[in-house]
Amino acid sequence: MQDILDYIEENRERYIEMIQTACQQPSISTQNIGIQEMAELCRSMLEGVGARAEIIPIEGGHPVVLGEIDGPSPRMLNIYNHYDVQPPEPLDLWWSEPFAAEVRDGRIWARGVADNKGHLVARICAVDAWRNVRGELPLNIRFIYEGEEEIGSTNLERFVEENRARITPADGCIWEGGGKDFNGRVRLSCGLKGICYIELAVTCANTDMHSSRATIVPNPAWRLVWALNTFKDANEQVLIEGFYDKVLEPTVEEQNILEETPFDEAEFLETFGMDSFLLGLSGQQLKIKDMFQPTCTICGIESGFNEPGGLKTVLPNTASAKIDMRLVPDQDPREICELVRAHLDRHGFDDISVKLLAAEHPAKTDLDAPLVGAVAEAVRQVQGHEPVIVPITPGSGPMYALCQAIDIPSVSGPGGGNPDSKIHAPNENMYVEDYINGIKGMAVLFEEFAKV
Amino acid sequence: MQDILDYIEENRERYIEMIQTACQQPSISTQNIGIQEMAELCRSMLEGVGARAEIIPIEGGHPVVLGEIDGPSPRMLNIYNHYDVQPPEPLDLWWSEPFAAEVRDGRIWARGVADNKGHLVARICAVDAWRNVRGELPLNIRFIYEGEEEIGSTNLERFVEENRARITPADGCIWEGGGKDFNGRVRLSCGLKGICYIELAVTCANTDMHSSRATIVPNPAWRLVWALNTFKDANEQVLIEGFYDKVLEPTVEEQNILEETPFDEAEFLETFGMDSFLLGLSGQQLKIKDMFQPTCTICGIESGFNEPGGLKTVLPNTASAKIDMRLVPDQDPREICELVRAHLDRHGFDDISVKLLAAEHPAKTDLDAPLVGAVAEAVRQVQGHEPVIVPITPGSGPMYALCQAIDIPSVSGPGGGNPDSKIHAPNENMYVEDYINGIKGMAVLFEEFAKV
Repeated sequence: MQDILDYIEENRERYIEMIQTACQQPSISTQNIGIQEMAELCRSMLEGVGARAEIIPIEGGHPVVLGEIDGPSPRMLNIYNHYDVQPPEPLDLWWSEPFAAEVRDGRIWARGVADNKGHLVARICAVDAWRNVRGELPLNIRFIYEGEEEIGSTNLERFVEENRARITPADGCIWEGGGKDFNGRVRLSCGLKGICYIELAVTCANTDMHSSRATIVPNPAWRLVWALNTFKDANEQVLIEGFYDKVLEPTVEEQNILEETPFDEAEFLETFGMDSFLLGLSGQQLKIKDMFQPTCTICGIESGFNEPGGLKTVLPNTASAKIDMRLVPDQDPREICELVRAHLDRHGFDDISVKLLAAEHPAKTDLDAPLVGAVAEAVRQVQGHEPVIVPITPGSGPMYALCQAIDIPSVSGPGGGNPDSKIHAPNENMYVEDYINGIKGMAVLFEEFAKV
Repeated sequence: MQDILDYIEENRERYIEMIQTACQQPSISTQNIGIQEMAELCRSMLEGVGARAEIIPIEGGHPVVLGEIDGPSPRMLNIYNHYDVQPPEPLDLWWSEPFAAEVRDGRIWARGVADNKGHLVARICAVDAWRNVRGELPLNIRFIYEGEEEIGSTNLERFVEENRARITPADGCIWEGGGKDFNGRVRLSCGLKGICYIELAVTCANTDMHSSRATIVPNPAWRLVWALNTFKDANEQVLIEGFYDKVLEPTVEEQNILEETPFDEAEFLETFGMDSFLLGLSGQQLKIKDMFQPTCTICGIESGFNEPGGLKTVLPNTASAKIDMRLVPDQDPREICELVRAHLDRHGFDDISVKLLAAEHPAKTDLDAPLVGAVAEAVRQVQGHEPVIVPITPGSGPMYALCQAIDIPSVSGPGGGNPDSKIHAPNENMYVEDYINGIKGMAVLFEEFAKV
């Protein structure tokens, strides 16, 4: 492998330019900005490393980009990434322009660099290195890039149903990202939480009014506050009837793994300017809550007049909130949405509408799967340390639809992100060194997975 | 009086142009737009009807415009108006440009026309008519225009203290507005509710995060929802300890007046697209709540990502809310603000900050005051009906500081507004006929108040 690793070192600058090019193309799915352009850039990057690539239109959605490249081994490795990114707002909190992809202080700063264009491009670079050094890849690779991950992968389940023959068979799937924990150890994730993302809305009168009218006219903001208050109590217990019914307790093996999983609490708290964790938790309890407990999060709430320092005495006539529930096996996102509706009705809030914006099943892969072993070996060779293997991570993604639902084992990749990558937030970043090591890790993984 | 009323009719077009000119000058105090220009326009209008006028700068605030004009009677009538307006947002809901002051379908449509430039200008027009017909006014008039009413009259109390000799003595004060109820009867208000307007804010981590972190990182939006939920229950009972301690029950006389005060519930409900009033109230109970009960209103709440239909899985790090409490005699706004702080601390919300943005005392004038009788007589002569005299209205203003605190009786004017004037909302408007009758009413009032 040393020849390929050396080649990657020699081509650092070119590979950095490739990630910059990808990050400089905005591709904000929620605002439908730059989607087609980014899909075309993906195809052209894939073709640039010798893959057969195609942009597959999705009716009413953003296209999927498929790429395929053959190797001598019968093994087929799927690689999943998404080419869309979160909106960059709030813009005034960025230290450099979010789509400039500036390299500064050893990091690349850009919206989407960690989530997940840095990973997407690193995997292409690994193919580039193999082909330029050895002439061909050691195994078959199939790239699957979606453009709706940040808006809940609405159409991916349907895409899988309609195109199953094009994405199977496969012996494993490398999931979108991968990264280090606070101790600098690469963490391999064998599962993802699911998600149920809903929008609540309520309207009272037909117009905003002078707030003096609050004596006799209902206020939608109060309706929403009272309703939300019935969703979760201050002990973080979700009060939606039936919410926890399908939650699986962690197995003894999972608890043991978690016990051994390092988590630098002090570092996390310092990084994010916090005095303590939620509920004052620490140690194993904190880790169990993080990994194996579902959430119910207000991602947004809005009503009335909110200009900072401003004074407008208005009685608003509408209020809305966005609620994100991260689900654990075996919770079902559509069932959860129905539970929310029933809960609101039961508590007298039938005036509040519920709209399901995204639904994804939780997913889990066997910790002993050959793919997990191959990624772990790649980490050992490139990073020189033993990776931390975890059964599930708190994030979400369409892993279930694309992998477990069609019997493909799946695990995250051998590196790239860092705990301060600020994904979904201003100043998203990736260390240049982590990016380069991510390329090397993928290159080794190709060899290791071709062997097993 | 007929000569003066005829003159007003003959000068309709000129008087309509005057109100249009005043409304076409934006003067948004909360955004500090057009304030100085509007103060100068006020001075020039006052000088145009022969008043001695002066713009008095207010340190750290918006200037007060004072005008004075002499008459033969020893009586001095103060007239209070404000030349600032609310922000026009949301702009897309306006049927015509908010500062175009278009005349359409018998109404003038403009931000501020009903609250309260239409009244401010009508009173100048009444002086204009008297001087052009009779050569002089029957009594002394003092105009007091402030530029901070819509941002809580922050500096008016201090202005009164520092300039008491310039605004006293006075035998009465005509308050800012005046208008009809749903039955088309002019309503005279002898008092105003007070206000305590506060901004709550809470910050958790030092950055927005990916919402998967909600397992272990506190969410300011939840903190705010839980805190607000302790402020008021679904029965509209304010739960802030001590909030009701100083609330005076309505007297038997006040209850009797209220019993006789018409309120067309069906018309109100239809106008505002409502099925029922708050708590399903009606009749005397509804009126008592409207007039004599304080409020606790969410005027604004905001946290996280709120683009309609958008999906951003973010754990926000800040949340804020604007709360407006309309107070009744003898509640004290600064005391109420302290009660809120103590309430938050007592309920474990010492992480939530409270900022007092506006504080005004409730105010009440004796229903038998000579000024009240004079305005009532003006309504009879111009409108041909008996006005409805109410002890207090649900709105607020700096009446206490400018009148009752320095022993000046105060009552609203003889007309102008209508129940569908949409003050503080899009499509604010005033009927042209009401505006003209407002001028006539003031002209008659000058004569009546000079006599008593």
